[in-house]
Amino acid sequence: MHFASDNTGPVHPKVMAALMAANEGYAPGYGADALMGEVKARIRALFEAPEAEVFLVATGTAANVLSLGTLTPPYATVFCSSTAHIHEDECNAPEFYTSGAKLTLVQAPDGRMSPEALRASIEGEENRGVHGPKRGPVSITNVTERGTVYSVAEIAALTAIAKEYGLATHLDGARFANALVTTNASPAEMTWKAGVDVLSFGGTKNGLMGVEAVVFFDPALAESFAYRRKRGAHLFSKHRFLSAQMAAYLEDGLWLELARAANAANTKLVAGMQSVPGARYLYPPQANMGFVAWPRASHQRLIEAGAQYNIMSGSLAGEDPNEALMARLVCDWSASDADIERFVEIAKG
Amino acid sequence: MHFASDNTGPVHPKVMAALMAANEGYAPGYGADALMGEVKARIRALFEAPEAEVFLVATGTAANVLSLGTLTPPYATVFCSSTAHIHEDECNAPEFYTSGAKLTLVQAPDGRMSPEALRASIEGEENRGVHGPKRGPVSITNVTERGTVYSVAEIAALTAIAKEYGLATHLDGARFANALVTTNASPAEMTWKAGVDVLSFGGTKNGLMGVEAVVFFDPALAESFAYRRKRGAHLFSKHRFLSAQMAAYLEDGLWLELARAANAANTKLVAGMQSVPGARYLYPPQANMGFVAWPRASHQRLIEAGAQYNIMSGSLAGEDPNEALMARLVCDWSASDADIERFVEIAKG
Amino acid sequence: MHFASDNTGPVHPKVMAALMAANEGYAPGYGADALMGEVKARIRALFEAPEAEVFLVATGTAANVLSLGTLTPPYATVFCSSTAHIHEDECNAPEFYTSGAKLTLVQAPDGRMSPEALRASIEGEENRGVHGPKRGPVSITNVTERGTVYSVAEIAALTAIAKEYGLATHLDGARFANALVTTNASPAEMTWKAGVDVLSFGGTKNGLMGVEAVVFFDPALAESFAYRRKRGAHLFSKHRFLSAQMAAYLEDGLWLELARAANAANTKLVAGMQSVPGARYLYPPQANMGFVAWPRASHQRLIEAGAQYNIMSGSLAGEDPNEALMARLVCDWSASDADIERFVEIAKG
Amino acid sequence: MHFASDNTGPVHPKVMAALMAANEGYAPGYGADALMGEVKARIRALFEAPEAEVFLVATGTAANVLSLGTLTPPYATVFCSSTAHIHEDECNAPEFYTSGAKLTLVQAPDGRMSPEALRASIEGEENRGVHGPKRGPVSITNVTERGTVYSVAEIAALTAIAKEYGLATHLDGARFANALVTTNASPAEMTWKAGVDVLSFGGTKNGLMGVEAVVFFDPALAESFAYRRKRGAHLFSKHRFLSAQMAAYLEDGLWLELARAANAANTKLVAGMQSVPGARYLYPPQANMGFVAWPRASHQRLIEAGAQYNIMSGSLAGEDPNEALMARLVCDWSASDADIERFVEIAKG
Repeated sequence: MHFASDNTGPVHPKVMAALMAANEGYAPGYGADALMGEVKARIRALFEAPEAEVFLVATGTAANVLSLGTLTPPYATVFCSSTAHIHEDECNAPEFYTSGAKLTLVQAPDGRMSPEALRASIEGEENRGVHGPKRGPVSITNVTERGTVYSVAEIAALTAIAKEYGLATHLDGARFANALVTTNASPAEMTWKAGVDVLSFGGTKNGLMGVEAVVFFDPALAESFAYRRKRGAHLFSKHRFLSAQMAAYLEDGLWLELARAANAANTKLVAGMQSVPGARYLYPPQANMGFVAWPRASHQRLIEAGAQYNIMSGSLAGEDPNEALMARLVCDWSASDADIERFVEIAKG
Repeated sequence: MHFASDNTGPVHPKVMAALMAANEGYAPGYGADALMGEVKARIRALFEAPEAEVFLVATGTAANVLSLGTLTPPYATVFCSSTAHIHEDECNAPEFYTSGAKLTLVQAPDGRMSPEALRASIEGEENRGVHGPKRGPVSITNVTERGTVYSVAEIAALTAIAKEYGLATHLDGARFANALVTTNASPAEMTWKAGVDVLSFGGTKNGLMGVEAVVFFDPALAESFAYRRKRGAHLFSKHRFLSAQMAAYLEDGLWLELARAANAANTKLVAGMQSVPGARYLYPPQANMGFVAWPRASHQRLIEAGAQYNIMSGSLAGEDPNEALMARLVCDWSASDADIERFVEIAKG
Repeated sequence: MHFASDNTGPVHPKVMAALMAANEGYAPGYGADALMGEVKARIRALFEAPEAEVFLVATGTAANVLSLGTLTPPYATVFCSSTAHIHEDECNAPEFYTSGAKLTLVQAPDGRMSPEALRASIEGEENRGVHGPKRGPVSITNVTERGTVYSVAEIAALTAIAKEYGLATHLDGARFANALVTTNASPAEMTWKAGVDVLSFGGTKNGLMGVEAVVFFDPALAESFAYRRKRGAHLFSKHRFLSAQMAAYLEDGLWLELARAANAANTKLVAGMQSVPGARYLYPPQANMGFVAWPRASHQRLIEAGAQYNIMSGSLAGEDPNEALMARLVCDWSASDADIERFVEIAKG
Repeated sequence: MHFASDNTGPVHPKVMAALMAANEGYAPGYGADALMGEVKARIRALFEAPEAEVFLVATGTAANVLSLGTLTPPYATVFCSSTAHIHEDECNAPEFYTSGAKLTLVQAPDGRMSPEALRASIEGEENRGVHGPKRGPVSITNVTERGTVYSVAEIAALTAIAKEYGLATHLDGARFANALVTTNASPAEMTWKAGVDVLSFGGTKNGLMGVEAVVFFDPALAESFAYRRKRGAHLFSKHRFLSAQMAAYLEDGLWLELARAANAANTKLVAGMQSVPGARYLYPPQANMGFVAWPRASHQRLIEAGAQYNIMSGSLAGEDPNEALMARLVCDWSASDADIERFVEIAKG
């Protein structure tokens, strides 16, 4: 019963097999491996973007902050939701990789910025001459950090505002595949057709060992990326093992298959949890993650039974058995029906 | 015939097997995996350093620059050899991770700094008040970037000078195992017993897929490392796959076995190359790497035959068949006798 | 009628005279001038802090961000009010000088952080392991950016919370003299006796040409300051001209006399503005600055008459003559009764 | 007898008078003062560069590093002489303001880089792909840090090489006026007509209290400068006092008059010193600064008599009275004939 994160589960066997297969003989290092050529071609085809520039790194934070470093001068500010991973969970890495830019936090009650909130935040900058920061890129996260999903139209509405002000746009797609599965959009529709300039295309949370692609739809923006990646110490000598993971991910739609499995598991879990007395989802759980509050006594049973998940507010040790504690439940591609059923069963008591 | 680098060859099968074995079920992320506990215990035992702090990262540059970031305030300068990897091959990553410190280049004709040269460089700083940088740590590379190896006594002589000035010391041990094999020193003798405070303990060039350990012999120095690693985007969510590589590396002395193989291959290659008419090693090839000059015509034959290696000075396309071109030849653990023999055969013509 | 800022008015004649007097013969540069010795002694006496370290810089932003750079590692976050100068008006200089730290904005409806709000913000960090920033210093501004003034007790309440969490404290005293005049506190009472570790002691807004002192009550914290100042390009070769201004400022209590004049002018202006029909102060105008809303038609008359001040919200060009536009009115030491009376007269219509 | 530096002497009385005159009434801050308009117009006229962008800062280091920050991405390297102020005397400020770029030191035995040495240094970079830094701007210092002066043709030869590689050029003109006086070149000839893109136009060493102009001949390069200056905490609120100094400096050729006086004083001093037994200039003293070696006993007499200057190598306390100690002697605009004569007299013994 593992619902702590989509990065605690196993790597998909096909990815492991691809790593084994890639371990034959010699290969030039630092991204010059033949597999990387394949990866680039596949991503360009998948995104209907023959000019796109593609780079691989090993962590989601690296993908995000190297992207932002490329787009953001040090005297600018990045617009992002107040719950964004780049603000909450990257220990000042965006500030580091932009050489000291700011993040301007846009209100996002359920993880999604509204066009009005984004516009208000943009308008709130560049009104103090050089005393305040220059407006920088807009960074959007889909799936959001609250488990909700922007539709293509919602993303397009945000990027349209960014473009109005001449600002670049970044999509943090650590769970991009899950968002596509939810929306039924194509990769192109969710990105450049919706006005996205740079994508962090996640793999690690969706069955890879540790690979994310950065996709620049406007190749001009990519010029400095290769230098920045090396300077950030994120260029792998044995790069073929990044390429191999990504190649396997894209082969025969494995990436979407895994996201479909994770989303389906979450749907099942949501249905189950909604039957738990006193349980309440705080935001619509639209992909593979939900934030749910339910009574302490039920949590206590689950934790005793070995369930793994994160309680976000309230303490297990409190007295009132009926007090609701809020938890985050995440399903990865490997979450089993049996585990979900058992979890719900115990939760119900 | 692959002598371009020790990072173009395959990962050792035992390491691949360990990755497969680690891919069972769930494991907590970000370094909290059980395997990391094992790795820490083994490294402490191996280095006879029960208090040492140990961290894993995925690239050698990350190990170096995160170490230096921990030791170096932004208004200081790092003393290193003029051929050091941190100066030549890390695209300003040390400057980045120290927030703008300088590197002071110490003369090192064969890759090794002499005590006199180091002292002169240290004396050359902190003589202009706050107008020049403050003296920072001394970074030593073993195996050096010219293929030579410092003895334990030579390292101790350098660290003694550093200590005299109150400076911390870092050892870039991207090829640490190879240096141990050459010198027959123990891990402790080559490091803390010789005055080293922080070690970049390499694995990637010696059969791993991409893992380096950073070992702080003075745990007080490690305090900020965990934050710096995350801020640098180098903390892996699926950390168990770093741990697994390092655990396999240390199991039954695999790491030394692989270094022994690489050094032995180099010894064989050196013997062969010395029989090539006109060939001359520029520095003593004491580990698994040599810099050799030999005639152009011979290079042309090798390249045509598909040999992979880097010509460092002079052009293959020149006219004089007897002109000596200088190349770097590196043997990894998998270099075969057959390949070496064939290489030498063709070189001889 | 100049109420735009306390930095648009003239330098006090005694300060100009001191500059002239300092321009005799030769003086060693970079802070080694004899006058600096005097300045240091006077500040130590004034603050009853014989161990304090004192440095001079030429801008308020430099004083603030060099202070914060000294106190804040790059992976930490500074706690400050949401209206703080360091957040609103320094174009990412704090992020720059801390090598990429964050600012955590504490709610401060009238410019003042409440102890509860500060505690909540502190509690909101360091709860995500290394994924979020480490808690850094607390920066307090007095006079606040809304014209209100913390009492000594209010400052002590904030620093007590900081100390509880082991955090250092910085006081942005760009208008420190004005705050002292309002509260009748002594320099020591408002600073180290109230738990302040580092003070930006302003002069520029209070009759100097461009000098601020940074005062470290804990000299251990000052260790790196001299290097950081030089590295920030803020060490003046002809430093005697900074010393001369500060010496004149402190001579015979000129600094308090000027602040008294500015505060008194503001009191007069407030009394006048409160008689303007429809005028309303948004926050208590406790020192030399107020935020007032009053009808558009009245603003139009003032601007036409050449009054200088900043309208903060609403547009002069709107239609409704009765709509209230909010403005900031600042009095410097040189604001004349005649100007104030004329301003109020025109405002009344 | 003050020959320690050209920043220990007095500000010229006309500059002091201009400061007094500027202290009338109110003036908008942060560079919007009317005087700044005048300064900009004068500099554009003087340099025959009607499009040039002009900014004022208060220290030479600020002028240099803000210029370099504008020209240099963090993954690049600046080419400068091994004796450059930006390398020797700015405590890592260039590394700070470029967010971590490197300096590549070009050999310059007498302070001047030769075209060959510059080309060799440029060729030495960008030959390792992304592993080494990208080539950045070329920074030239005139007057050099060894007291020699580049001719216009020599500067043009260096910038021609820079342009060949597509690199921008910066001229550190802390002693620009002195170089013009020596060469009889016009401001335009020494700068944009000779291929210079950005100039640090010094005033502080030549009679000002503390003002340097940064002149961008290509205004496109200036785009980010205003933000960078503020972010560096170098934008003055009471900016009119910077403008006033620079306006006075340019009025009726005061700037050249002062440089002429300083150079003439140096010429006289050189003539005198050459008559001191055992004295030897190490480099041609072509402007207002010389590096001279002469016997210890003579130094001892001078220091006892109260002469102020810096001994650069060797110790006053040594035994051999005939051993030559090397000193730097700098004449500022105010150096008097009497002082020079007395100095030489005592030196002769």
